[in-house]
Amino acid sequence: MSVKRSNRMIGAKASFTREALKYAEVPGVIAFADGSPNEDLFPVPEMTKAFNKVLNDEWRHAFQYTPTEGYEPLKVQLQKRMEKFGVSCTHDQMLITTGSQQGLDLSAKIYIDPGDVILVESPTYLGALSAFRYYQPNVVEVDMDEEGMRMDALEARLQEYTNTRFIYTIPDFQNPSGRVMSAERRQRIVELAEKYDVMIVEDNPYYELRFEGERIPPIKHYDKNGRVIYLGSTSKSFVPGLRVGWIVATETIIRDYVLLKQAADLSTTEIAQQVVAHFMEDEDFDAHVDRLNATYRVKRDVMMKAFKAYFPDSIQATYPQGGLFLWLTLPEHCDCMELFWKALEKEKVIFIPGETCYPRGGHKNTLRLCYSTASDEEIEEGMKRLARVLGPAAQSK
Amino acid sequence: MSVKRSNRMIGAKASFTREALKYAEVPGVIAFADGSPNEDLFPVPEMTKAFNKVLNDEWRHAFQYTPTEGYEPLKVQLQKRMEKFGVSCTHDQMLITTGSQQGLDLSAKIYIDPGDVILVESPTYLGALSAFRYYQPNVVEVDMDEEGMRMDALEARLQEYTNTRFIYTIPDFQNPSGRVMSAERRQRIVELAEKYDVMIVEDNPYYELRFEGERIPPIKHYDKNGRVIYLGSTSKSFVPGLRVGWIVATETIIRDYVLLKQAADLSTTEIAQQVVAHFMEDEDFDAHVDRLNATYRVKRDVMMKAFKAYFPDSIQATYPQGGLFLWLTLPEHCDCMELFWKALEKEKVIFIPGETCYPRGGHKNTLRLCYSTASDEEIEEGMKRLARVLGPAAQSK
Repeated sequence: MSVKRSNRMIGAKASFTREALKYAEVPGVIAFADGSPNEDLFPVPEMTKAFNKVLNDEWRHAFQYTPTEGYEPLKVQLQKRMEKFGVSCTHDQMLITTGSQQGLDLSAKIYIDPGDVILVESPTYLGALSAFRYYQPNVVEVDMDEEGMRMDALEARLQEYTNTRFIYTIPDFQNPSGRVMSAERRQRIVELAEKYDVMIVEDNPYYELRFEGERIPPIKHYDKNGRVIYLGSTSKSFVPGLRVGWIVATETIIRDYVLLKQAADLSTTEIAQQVVAHFMEDEDFDAHVDRLNATYRVKRDVMMKAFKAYFPDSIQATYPQGGLFLWLTLPEHCDCMELFWKALEKEKVIFIPGETCYPRGGHKNTLRLCYSTASDEEIEEGMKRLARVLGPAAQSK
Repeated sequence: MSVKRSNRMIGAKASFTREALKYAEVPGVIAFADGSPNEDLFPVPEMTKAFNKVLNDEWRHAFQYTPTEGYEPLKVQLQKRMEKFGVSCTHDQMLITTGSQQGLDLSAKIYIDPGDVILVESPTYLGALSAFRYYQPNVVEVDMDEEGMRMDALEARLQEYTNTRFIYTIPDFQNPSGRVMSAERRQRIVELAEKYDVMIVEDNPYYELRFEGERIPPIKHYDKNGRVIYLGSTSKSFVPGLRVGWIVATETIIRDYVLLKQAADLSTTEIAQQVVAHFMEDEDFDAHVDRLNATYRVKRDVMMKAFKAYFPDSIQATYPQGGLFLWLTLPEHCDCMELFWKALEKEKVIFIPGETCYPRGGHKNTLRLCYSTASDEEIEEGMKRLARVLGPAAQSK
């Protein structure tokens, strides 16, 4: 059989992360690899209440075909939440999506013809790269520093690539680096988008997960002329299994997303939307988020403490004020993909090699650690084990 | 603002059906327009039991990130169901999708580069055309008769369009025509796909809904060499709101779908999959389907009887042995889009003008009626009203 597949399928293959996560299931393995939220923080009794409300009173609506745009009362709740963060939007400026992953897929679908440029942070979220790749973009990296994407580097890229369609950024507790874009740069990125006539896709799943320091408004807050498409997610602040995300953009742009979403899956599972809505209506969402942050803060502290105790000075780590990730930089000569296999075999501990987070690879001396799912004891033990592999590697040459 | 959108967005617009359905909500309107299942047939107590099982015992799995491939026990159940219809498949030959709409979208994403040909029945499902259009195919129509797609017409098209990638067909109780493809043609279409080296996308959401005559095995049953990609749906045989569909194909092909699904939405809402699985494990699915068919059979009879009583001989109707649709052909000079507005305004009854079901329009003298959602009394009354508009139109010239 030789039926030709489309050009977009050339070179398509399963991601390393996907492979790596299989080892998380092996007994005895301590996993710092995935970016999942901690299951003990799922508000199950309150969710059960919400499910029962739907099953008792709203089942006709829940189980029938429903509008592509999303469940109205959920949009009301998410609008209130966004308002709190400094982003106002109307009903027609919001769309519910099947996770924010769908928002990524549809963003490239709307804007990208083969060869068009998407500018991304270096490093960036692997799942976004997978979503984008099937629209055959030229993905171009923009350097970061501790304040997020560098604006001088961004402007240089915008000047160089006049066929740029959008800038993709994760401004808060970035995956994988854990970094936060400064307020000044948030203003500046919008100015640059205006100047060079490109869109910004702001992916902000970790926004709620700040456990230290002051919240900075989303980039969308600084957007006066509809340049910013905001992608929200309930996967980190609530539960990922329901697959509920949202998009905020101008009414005209949302109309495009609605057309594409209808073609892609008609609508997002309604009862999932209803349960999120009822939880937000009936419970104290701020208190819920505080509970998450109290837990993640402790886990970050345990990991940072172990890092300082067991790792040599030649390995550097970011200090995240929120989110789920620590980003490590080893001496230049280290190869973290090799070290991944070594750590798995010798010490039964796994992480994500940083090179998988760069569209063009390289940066083999970086890696990502996630502290959300392991217990505090496992974090301590896992870091000790990891140090036994990374420590010697960082010294030797 | 003038950010260039991709070429696939040129001419994108909301479908007429989508607009038409808004009128279904107007008080007093009798709707024969949508293709929704009847809500009174949703097995709510049994579903509630299934939800509670998940909420009590399986919530960790339900609410965490889950594998893209789908919920294992659901695949086991669907495999058994397919086996019953004459289609065997292994675990790795099946993928769960976010409704079968996602299967349509991903099919075009795998196989279509701009300009590649998809062969479709004339008329065909509007939602499939929407899914396909964003991959910029050349959609070419193949004539039908009462036994489904005509194989002589199909072969002529395959000879003419050597860049055909797949044939799209709805073999059972086709949307919109209600027709069933004969067993002989099911064998023949596989032979032709082999001969001309193309795939077949078999979309079969109505398969379970036969209330008269004998079941014919799916086209996939006749497929010896992996030419057929089968798209299944729980929307008509269970409930649409959960958004659970599935694909059966070779292991190699399923791997492609998994990659694309992961990029598109990571996975389908897990609790939706679990509830379908538990319903199929714990309840008698055959008895459930029998109940649906007993109801739809009565509704079909009520509609056919009213058709014979109130409509002139110059209007012809298909006689569906299953599914949800009646397909009407009026005299050539009739314009059913005009008649749609007339019927809505004068008689408060709506249907789908047939021209919307043809990729290139035309066939203005056809229309689709759906008998699933209206009560028996509404069907009788609605047909009487409709005859008052269509009858005179069919006579006059």
